Amino acid sequence: NFITQITHRISFTFSIGYRHQQTTAKRVEEVEFDGPCMKTEVPGPRSKILAQQLEAIQSVVQVNFFCDYEESKGNYLVDVDGNRMLDVYTQIASIPIGYNHPALTKVMTDPKNMGTFVNRPALGMMPPEQFSEKLVNGLMAVAPKGFSRVQTMACGSCSNENAYKAIFIWYRVRGQQFLSLVFSFFFQVPGCPDLTLLSFMGGFHGRTLGCLATTHTKAIQKLDVPSFDWPIAPFPQLRYPLGQFERENAQEEARCLEEVEDLIVKWNQKGRHVAGVVIEPIQAEGGDNHASFDFYRKLRGITKKPFRIFNTWLGDHTKNLLLTEVIKVIKTENLLDQAKRSGKVILEGLYNLQDKYPHLLSRARGIGTFCAIDVKDEDTRNNLILKARNKGVVLGGCGTQSIRFRPALVFTEHHAHLFLDIFNDAIAELK
Amino acid sequence: NFITQITHRISFTFSIGYRHQQTTAKRVEEVEFDGPCMKTEVPGPRSKILAQQLEAIQSVVQVNFFCDYEESKGNYLVDVDGNRMLDVYTQIASIPIGYNHPALTKVMTDPKNMGTFVNRPALGMMPPEQFSEKLVNGLMAVAPKGFSRVQTMACGSCSNENAYKAIFIWYRVRGQQFLSLVFSFFFQVPGCPDLTLLSFMGGFHGRTLGCLATTHTKAIQKLDVPSFDWPIAPFPQLRYPLGQFERENAQEEARCLEEVEDLIVKWNQKGRHVAGVVIEPIQAEGGDNHASFDFYRKLRGITKKPFRIFNTWLGDHTKNLLLTEVIKVIKTENLLDQAKRSGKVILEGLYNLQDKYPHLLSRARGIGTFCAIDVKDEDTRNNLILKARNKGVVLGGCGTQSIRFRPALVFTEHHAHLFLDIFNDAIAELK
Repeated sequence: NFITQITHRISFTFSIGYRHQQTTAKRVEEVEFDGPCMKTEVPGPRSKILAQQLEAIQSVVQVNFFCDYEESKGNYLVDVDGNRMLDVYTQIASIPIGYNHPALTKVMTDPKNMGTFVNRPALGMMPPEQFSEKLVNGLMAVAPKGFSRVQTMACGSCSNENAYKAIFIWYRVRGQQFLSLVFSFFFQVPGCPDLTLLSFMGGFHGRTLGCLATTHTKAIQKLDVPSFDWPIAPFPQLRYPLGQFERENAQEEARCLEEVEDLIVKWNQKGRHVAGVVIEPIQAEGGDNHASFDFYRKLRGITKKPFRIFNTWLGDHTKNLLLTEVIKVIKTENLLDQAKRSGKVILEGLYNLQDKYPHLLSRARGIGTFCAIDVKDEDTRNNLILKARNKGVVLGGCGTQSIRFRPALVFTEHHAHLFLDIFNDAIAELK
Repeated sequence: NFITQITHRISFTFSIGYRHQQTTAKRVEEVEFDGPCMKTEVPGPRSKILAQQLEAIQSVVQVNFFCDYEESKGNYLVDVDGNRMLDVYTQIASIPIGYNHPALTKVMTDPKNMGTFVNRPALGMMPPEQFSEKLVNGLMAVAPKGFSRVQTMACGSCSNENAYKAIFIWYRVRGQQFLSLVFSFFFQVPGCPDLTLLSFMGGFHGRTLGCLATTHTKAIQKLDVPSFDWPIAPFPQLRYPLGQFERENAQEEARCLEEVEDLIVKWNQKGRHVAGVVIEPIQAEGGDNHASFDFYRKLRGITKKPFRIFNTWLGDHTKNLLLTEVIKVIKTENLLDQAKRSGKVILEGLYNLQDKYPHLLSRARGIGTFCAIDVKDEDTRNNLILKARNKGVVLGGCGTQSIRFRPALVFTEHHAHLFLDIFNDAIAELK
């Protein structure tokens, strides 16, 4: 029985010793598996059979391996061949407090939540009793300062599509007369104006048609699909370590900001006004590209500008129930402090590794545990990810030659050292 | 405790008698509530307080009332004021086998499904063991003939956005040389071609930017948002009852088909080739507009035409678990036969009502339980929906003056008569 496998954390323990860093203090936050345990290469025979079955009904080119989500626990992902891997990718940072956290299984087994999980409400019209309360204690509790309202959507692409619509509507309501509805009934000019959004090279905002017009990571995503002709600015390409390249990086950021200003002026002059600017705080899919806080402040300065968005479903309320619990766990277990500590270990470890293997690794970077490093080329990067996986560490790539690290917030210094040791072994094996 | 409230069906019973149709045989498929039970007007005081709370963080103009999804059961929706209503709208046809069907609560409480509900997998890369099996026994088991492959998405809009992309890609791969990826890296011509999709007036396909370019129901949805300039054809406006207007309706459908052909030729000549045609089998949001099977066959004839779609999440696997169970229940309980029988009662009842109130009602229409009727004008329609609600029947509008009926598949003849009685009472009260 699955439920009985979940055990609450019981104690602190100390490490016995690590190749990467000897006798470091560790905290095991939860009684979980005591390390990776590999039985086959990954994907193993069972994963391969399942992939063949799935191939009969859909493309499997992106499938890595099949997982046993019931057996996975904390920082460890278990696959269908029984391989247990330390997960430093966590479904692209989507398992915030680890696999099968007891707080979340409790939400699921609470009889009073049953109705929310089995009946899908049209939240926009017939929300459940706790809808508002869960939003207030969930999303609003972690909303950036100054955000006072919230509307949920089913996925990231839909959220961005609706944000884009909000930008256009706001631009028109604020700046121009509110055109009569009649004009737009045939859905072309003047009801549907020729407004544009400015986005950045290397940005990823989703793959639906509106989002896709602002996504510029892989060419294959856009080929053959009609798109909006909107302005695209360069994103700063910083040099690392930051401390050594302060002047060069400041110049690079200034160059990009200047380009943004030029594009806005140019497109406004063409009569295709720029209604908004869309940017990722850290370009992830595009290669874990950071810019300085100063860059964002100045960008905000350039764009300084002071709703008609309806969705029937407003996403899935079960996610609000889970999110509220996730936030509670993050607070009660001080997981943000934990992430800072673990992030420090990871980044210092990456610095050491790039010093040790300068011909292979460079540009170690990150904030908290949101870290990345570049490998000398794409093939070597892909090879390194596979080697690490077969040694029991799940990693993910991004950009052309980066590896991005996305551990859960329950990833402790102990896990960080464990990861660095195995990562070091995998690198050492590269020719 | 919620679980204990669910009782499996135990017996057949017979009706005592109805105003609308006396002493008809009824089958009560489940022991459920024995009828509507109203305690307050709807929205009641508790709903109003909750709406005020929600208004602090989002727009509530579309909120009807707040629901108690834990207390709702079978065909009955219970609101937070304890009002129990016969639901002939079921969250826009999204509660296929009734509220809290025991088969679905069983899926939720099965410990082996826990991991799927609490850990969100990136299905496109790391699917769970049963992923393929659930797709085969779920979506593929009910796929239209000739469909051999399936890819899931998180919501209807995302599904349509990706279907549109598939159309464009297919059009280019089939008809033209596969352009080098390099050309599209800057994401404008020639990588992103000026292809178009033909859609129909009154169609609803979602509100994301690609979908929105093919949605033509309410002008407010599109105002101020940049759109693709794509061709729009008229959708047949049929006259009812169909038997009396065969010649007129055939002419109307021929007119629309001719317009489709003209548009395709015209747009192809402009060099803005029509890569695909998008149509709803029954236009729902646009007013429950039907066309004949013959119309669709001829449209297919006009468009006769013989992948590069990736999504990280591929929707939500928990929905596959629930869908597989829904399909099983539909089969084992013969719910499609049930829907045919109930639909017949509903449609005959609507015919009777429009004969009785010809100054108020017209154009009763439907297939199965997917029925609709027109009310003389928008205000009267809205008024009638509110009156019915206060008598314990939940209905939904569509188009400018239609009411659409969307009961669950567990809606029996008994519920149909109950609905018709109350609907009749509500109509009789209209001035």
